[in-house]
Amino acid sequence: MSVLKSSKTKIAAVAAASVLSIGIFSGIEFGQADKAEAKKKPKNDVQNVIVLIGDGMGTPYLSTYRSFKHNGDLSKQTAFDPYLTGMHKTYPDDSKNNITDSAAAGTAMATGKKTYNNAIGVNKNGKKLKTVLEEAKRKGKSTGLVVTSELTNATPAAYAAHDVSRKNTAAIADDFFDEKIGKQHTVDVMLGGGLVDFVRKDRDLTKEFRQAGYDYVTNKAALQKNKNEKVLGIFADGGLDKAIDRDQTTPSLQDMTSSAIKQLSKNKKGFFLMVEGSQIDWAGHDHDIVSAMSEMKDFEKAFEEAIRFAKKDKNTLVITTADHSTGGLSFGADGSGSWDYKPVKAAKKTPDFIANKIVSGMPVESALKQYINLDFTKEEIASIQKAAETKDTVKIDDAIEEVINTRSHTGWTTSGHTGDEVPFFAYGPTSQQLKGLMENTDQAKHIFKLLKNQ
Amino acid sequence: MSVLKSSKTKIAAVAAASVLSIGIFSGIEFGQADKAEAKKKPKNDVQNVIVLIGDGMGTPYLSTYRSFKHNGDLSKQTAFDPYLTGMHKTYPDDSKNNITDSAAAGTAMATGKKTYNNAIGVNKNGKKLKTVLEEAKRKGKSTGLVVTSELTNATPAAYAAHDVSRKNTAAIADDFFDEKIGKQHTVDVMLGGGLVDFVRKDRDLTKEFRQAGYDYVTNKAALQKNKNEKVLGIFADGGLDKAIDRDQTTPSLQDMTSSAIKQLSKNKKGFFLMVEGSQIDWAGHDHDIVSAMSEMKDFEKAFEEAIRFAKKDKNTLVITTADHSTGGLSFGADGSGSWDYKPVKAAKKTPDFIANKIVSGMPVESALKQYINLDFTKEEIASIQKAAETKDTVKIDDAIEEVINTRSHTGWTTSGHTGDEVPFFAYGPTSQQLKGLMENTDQAKHIFKLLKNQ
Repeated sequence: MSVLKSSKTKIAAVAAASVLSIGIFSGIEFGQADKAEAKKKPKNDVQNVIVLIGDGMGTPYLSTYRSFKHNGDLSKQTAFDPYLTGMHKTYPDDSKNNITDSAAAGTAMATGKKTYNNAIGVNKNGKKLKTVLEEAKRKGKSTGLVVTSELTNATPAAYAAHDVSRKNTAAIADDFFDEKIGKQHTVDVMLGGGLVDFVRKDRDLTKEFRQAGYDYVTNKAALQKNKNEKVLGIFADGGLDKAIDRDQTTPSLQDMTSSAIKQLSKNKKGFFLMVEGSQIDWAGHDHDIVSAMSEMKDFEKAFEEAIRFAKKDKNTLVITTADHSTGGLSFGADGSGSWDYKPVKAAKKTPDFIANKIVSGMPVESALKQYINLDFTKEEIASIQKAAETKDTVKIDDAIEEVINTRSHTGWTTSGHTGDEVPFFAYGPTSQQLKGLMENTDQAKHIFKLLKNQ
Repeated sequence: MSVLKSSKTKIAAVAAASVLSIGIFSGIEFGQADKAEAKKKPKNDVQNVIVLIGDGMGTPYLSTYRSFKHNGDLSKQTAFDPYLTGMHKTYPDDSKNNITDSAAAGTAMATGKKTYNNAIGVNKNGKKLKTVLEEAKRKGKSTGLVVTSELTNATPAAYAAHDVSRKNTAAIADDFFDEKIGKQHTVDVMLGGGLVDFVRKDRDLTKEFRQAGYDYVTNKAALQKNKNEKVLGIFADGGLDKAIDRDQTTPSLQDMTSSAIKQLSKNKKGFFLMVEGSQIDWAGHDHDIVSAMSEMKDFEKAFEEAIRFAKKDKNTLVITTADHSTGGLSFGADGSGSWDYKPVKAAKKTPDFIANKIVSGMPVESALKQYINLDFTKEEIASIQKAAETKDTVKIDDAIEEVINTRSHTGWTTSGHTGDEVPFFAYGPTSQQLKGLMENTDQAKHIFKLLKNQ
């Protein structure tokens, strides 16, 4: 953990407060409360909470994905649609920006407190904030983080680490091991990417976790064989490949979610799990609608996995939302009157994957023919050829994206995030309390309230 | 009414069906139902329905307006915020476009049936569709249309006219007079713009309405003095000026809404009123964030008027939504990390108003100094100067907008509409039945159900 260096006294005070908090929270068990108190508080039947965050998944991602999924039939539904209960306001508490990043939004959703952009589980003074995941652990529940980015990326970090900056990814990885609730590590199941932060010159956290009783897995087959309730699964040096680029050895977000639920649900006291469709956002930053749809599909399948479990279990609250929208995506552009899924669906691999093939020596026309099922015009091929001459993957990637954006009438306004409200979905007991226009801190407040009674 | 000429038989059938419908609907009075039936159906206490449509008002309009209204304090609320219950899917039933126009969306919201773009109250075969406004009239309620566009524009037209094309505005104006429910004209209170369609070489509808017992008013003072329950108020040849450009003789949307409610609520059987913030959409098409905020404010005040009445009345359902989003607006652009209300609030008049002043001979720097409270850079002034040399209002308007969009980090992707879901707000009895992700046809279905029991 790195906290503000200018404020050592505060850090000490925070540490003391944390210890105190642990004392207070571990001292209260619902069963120990006196009977009068128990009568006042009806037994709370939310045993498990699964929060699924589509990073960057603003409204237009759902609109375009609905069309993509159903080949243009907009009367049909995504898996999310039936569960819409409201929308989230996403702004941070930041003096410089009124559009949030994933760190401030992640912290808001994890702790119930708004903070500045870049903050990981700390407030504006660098003070540690209690997270819902930590609180669930204090109550004896199992906990999990499942992502397609690095496990140390902003959103998962905000649930189990504390740092003044999201950039301190090595310190964030250390937090996953060093921050403890009582004698236990904070997170039981960690699945995602980001090996570089776990295996470093100065420290091998995979080894330390193994020594602490965790299984360590690095591919889909091993993950599926795992029977240990404590497991660290890292499937890439950085983020996982986009879903449509992934090979058979890499698990899908659904695979990871399924595996996490399987282990976490062994705990009779219940669990808290955060699942992130991390790279919807990355696709948005890149103005890459092919990748955006790939990651939406991956995320939707993970959501369906959570809903399936919740429907069977009946004591599980499922919450799904976005931290912000990314790229200023719009369904339709350039006065089109339509958005066309076909050029997007024509791509069998991401523009980035194809650009890499071209840089590796594959002729442009062969690459396009092999990976995108479209009749390219001469002008389109020429624009990609021109980019290919630079041998710059980014430029080739951009040129391919440009063709698909133009053909599909996909609009973008920014390389960054936008501050528009995002859709909010909920299912399961107490889900109807999370409705209307909410602050992004409301879900954490709700979860803390649920945990208080357990 | 112009319907499909290729389908005369169908038209005759429709006309017959309409007569039959009128017979059926006027024959059922709730009080006449037998007592057993009455017991089954609990007395419905929704006497009045006010539908307010922010034309083009997608999510980003609410986000930017929240910041604009509260000088950047995003923790504060718009008048709409507390009433969010869900979102609307807006797509039309159109073979060419999957993004709706205001005609298809207006028809969907007025009739409960999806149709093709351009259709006014007719289905794909040109068949007349029954509207909620007409049905309210059949039940003996009073009816009203209040807009800032021409009264013959797509949204109001869809509630009380029937035409194969929104372009037939003269025929639409004729429908307002000629289409009757029993012996009565369909709409009791009509307030907005569009004189050119009402006073034409071939027909003077203002005269015909006066002869039919309507008061005809053309300015704010006359509107406020009016005591007639039947009133036609036309305040401009085309659309009204934007709210911040309006002079004292032109009523605000709130003035018109207040006046309409005053007259309509005299009817003990209740009323149906549709109020449209028509020009939010026009501002979006123009990529003019100054006008968008002007019209959002005008619309919000009308909404507050409706809510005030509903809170006092207790038997009024208020529904507010958009027909679609316009322009691909986003809160933030160009990797900004923020949206800035200040350059937008600095404008005292719309760019269009200022451009007209410049074309009329006012020097660029004087016009900017007088109407926009910003320190313009030399480059910004030069860009507007250059446009001014063309003496083309549109180019000057665009140049001013460009400066404000760039400074405020306002993003746009299209000159047209976008197909993203739009927010939905509701207040009053049965409002909680209108929640989650809905079709834009659901509100009409709901209103028809309410009317069925009356």
